[in-house]
Amino acid sequence: MLQVRVKPGIEDRVRGFFPWIYRPEIASYSRKPKKGELVVVRDFGGKFLGYGYINPEVNIAVRILSFDKEEPINKELIKKRIKEAYNYRKRLYTNSNAFRLIHSEGDLLPGLIVDVYGEYTVIEFTTYGMNKFRDTVIESLVELLRPKGIYEKENLTAKKVEGVNAKEGTVYGNVPEEITIWEHDLKYVINIPQGQKTGFFLDQRNSRRFVRSLVEPGDRCLDVFCHTGGFALNMKKMGAGEVIAVDISGLALEVGRKNEELNGLSGIEWVEANAFDFMRELVSKGEKFDLVVIDPPSFAKNRHAVPNALRGYKELCVRGLKLVKPGGYLAIFSCSFHITEQHLLEVLTQASYDVRRQVRVIAKTFQDKDHPWILQMPNTLYLKGVWVEVV
Amino acid sequence: MLQVRVKPGIEDRVRGFFPWIYRPEIASYSRKPKKGELVVVRDFGGKFLGYGYINPEVNIAVRILSFDKEEPINKELIKKRIKEAYNYRKRLYTNSNAFRLIHSEGDLLPGLIVDVYGEYTVIEFTTYGMNKFRDTVIESLVELLRPKGIYEKENLTAKKVEGVNAKEGTVYGNVPEEITIWEHDLKYVINIPQGQKTGFFLDQRNSRRFVRSLVEPGDRCLDVFCHTGGFALNMKKMGAGEVIAVDISGLALEVGRKNEELNGLSGIEWVEANAFDFMRELVSKGEKFDLVVIDPPSFAKNRHAVPNALRGYKELCVRGLKLVKPGGYLAIFSCSFHITEQHLLEVLTQASYDVRRQVRVIAKTFQDKDHPWILQMPNTLYLKGVWVEVV
Repeated sequence: MLQVRVKPGIEDRVRGFFPWIYRPEIASYSRKPKKGELVVVRDFGGKFLGYGYINPEVNIAVRILSFDKEEPINKELIKKRIKEAYNYRKRLYTNSNAFRLIHSEGDLLPGLIVDVYGEYTVIEFTTYGMNKFRDTVIESLVELLRPKGIYEKENLTAKKVEGVNAKEGTVYGNVPEEITIWEHDLKYVINIPQGQKTGFFLDQRNSRRFVRSLVEPGDRCLDVFCHTGGFALNMKKMGAGEVIAVDISGLALEVGRKNEELNGLSGIEWVEANAFDFMRELVSKGEKFDLVVIDPPSFAKNRHAVPNALRGYKELCVRGLKLVKPGGYLAIFSCSFHITEQHLLEVLTQASYDVRRQVRVIAKTFQDKDHPWILQMPNTLYLKGVWVEVV
Repeated sequence: MLQVRVKPGIEDRVRGFFPWIYRPEIASYSRKPKKGELVVVRDFGGKFLGYGYINPEVNIAVRILSFDKEEPINKELIKKRIKEAYNYRKRLYTNSNAFRLIHSEGDLLPGLIVDVYGEYTVIEFTTYGMNKFRDTVIESLVELLRPKGIYEKENLTAKKVEGVNAKEGTVYGNVPEEITIWEHDLKYVINIPQGQKTGFFLDQRNSRRFVRSLVEPGDRCLDVFCHTGGFALNMKKMGAGEVIAVDISGLALEVGRKNEELNGLSGIEWVEANAFDFMRELVSKGEKFDLVVIDPPSFAKNRHAVPNALRGYKELCVRGLKLVKPGGYLAIFSCSFHITEQHLLEVLTQASYDVRRQVRVIAKTFQDKDHPWILQMPNTLYLKGVWVEVV
């Protein structure tokens, strides 16, 4: 197997379970590396650090799947990891039939995303190296889950950066265009081929639950960047009065309407609009809400985009705070690794200075547990939410 | 009224609801200030900023109670603030008859702590200025709560620094030495005169609830720095098997035992020991637990104590991680403003490097909502907890 020696000083981080070796950190190869091949990673002195796969063309050159000398990478290891991930989720979820089964590095399977939607499974390969295990992954999922169908999603970034050749479409059994999943006492329609991510924002499950604790019957609520209505539906389910849900995507709103009907709910006002503009309009009309949730898409795909993203967040917070009644609540989320919880707190502080409102933090949330945040790998924390009461 | 002008640049922070003026930030007084007297705070140009009280002998010279020109400080304002704080808690708490009613700056009543334990109330004055409203506070609490008794706790720091002359003891009605409160489905004995803080760690209410979600019947659990057993009792209530609860205070353990009996529970092993030593002993014996909760007292009363405190935290985390079975959970808390959540995450990362265990963060908690964390006043966030799963 190809041997990769890392430069002195890198070994500690790897021994601490950080699974990436950046290209400039590699001291030498035992021979010319081939894209996607398996490697043994060693420290500068030659001591074993881990087994992984390599893509010499990209910045994250090596991704490690095993830190154990007795655990080389093969079909069995892939199957074992998938099984372990499944057991972990089984312990966690009695409250939904939809969950993320494999969260890439978070499950020591870098480059692989697997989401389970009841009897259907969605897979996504984000690295060239993991894509070589495509058949094993599919076989393993069929054995473990006995799904009616498996759908493969194409990841455009992975295609461009890593050169992954994924074929978007059904790769096993049959997958209908629309399926229905349940979470707590609500059902959700999922459009796998056309939906964002793999079809549903599973990572906000705990926040969809938490939002319920803030709704009192009759409350006026606003769900900004509502997508298919995850927050709006939960607000309505708790007896909210007027609920306005705004998103730029007509397709997402259409699914949202179906969700509303499917759950026997009514009265959500679905608005197709630019959220920034719509909020400004509400502010200028002097509208007030008991609860405003703002869950924007990623404004910062990389660290260079952070300053601009922060300006966007500041605007959202200023408008959000202005729209909340005294004693009401505001939630703001970042789904980008680069916009941290600390950023959200700072932006909220600035915004509350500007609008002269005192603000109490009532909760901080992050992605649900089926998207594990590995302490040794800060990159695995990406979704953060801050919930405040506006005094 | 005494006029206090602040130096240029300070006004923005005050307008953003930060209620403290440090002594060096004061530009001038309209006359010589008297300890505890009411003041109007103005910016350098003379514009109104707020009403507060002053203690020219201490570093935090002015504490503001009102940012509203139409809302000067008088008996009515104190009563109004107490009423508002009560209404806020009434909305929050249907799950206990014990709560913090006034959290000093968090309720715009700097220098005042009021805890409600069912029919009894405990008050504590931590500033000279607030202590001047002692009679109004007591009168107001009697009107609002109709308590059987009010007990005043002496705060030694306040006595030393601020010169508060509190008399420890019953100031209204009768307060028995021991009372019983309930929280969720458990009862707790509180010894107001002898207990730590005002008698009970109300601020950990949400964490006592959260810990339940991690316990499976038969689990072996460890409650380190257990005080009167808040976590241990909840573990046992959820069907834990062996539960060991360790604390240095025999008095606290005695109350813990009473709590156990009171709730019809049994089998908690109460250990009077130094927690550091006891954990080392458990490690050396190779003991393993499904769940370990470490809730130490403050190791860092000021920022100079931080480096030492971090060493202590590192040791606790190393020992804690060693004591957790694969798939088990560890929680670590800081109740000091100076040891932040970021510190806890860093120390945990270092410790997990040392013990070579991969760690997943499953939750971050902070003090419960009756101890409001005001975004504009970072000092109001003091209790932080990080919960991890040890893979």
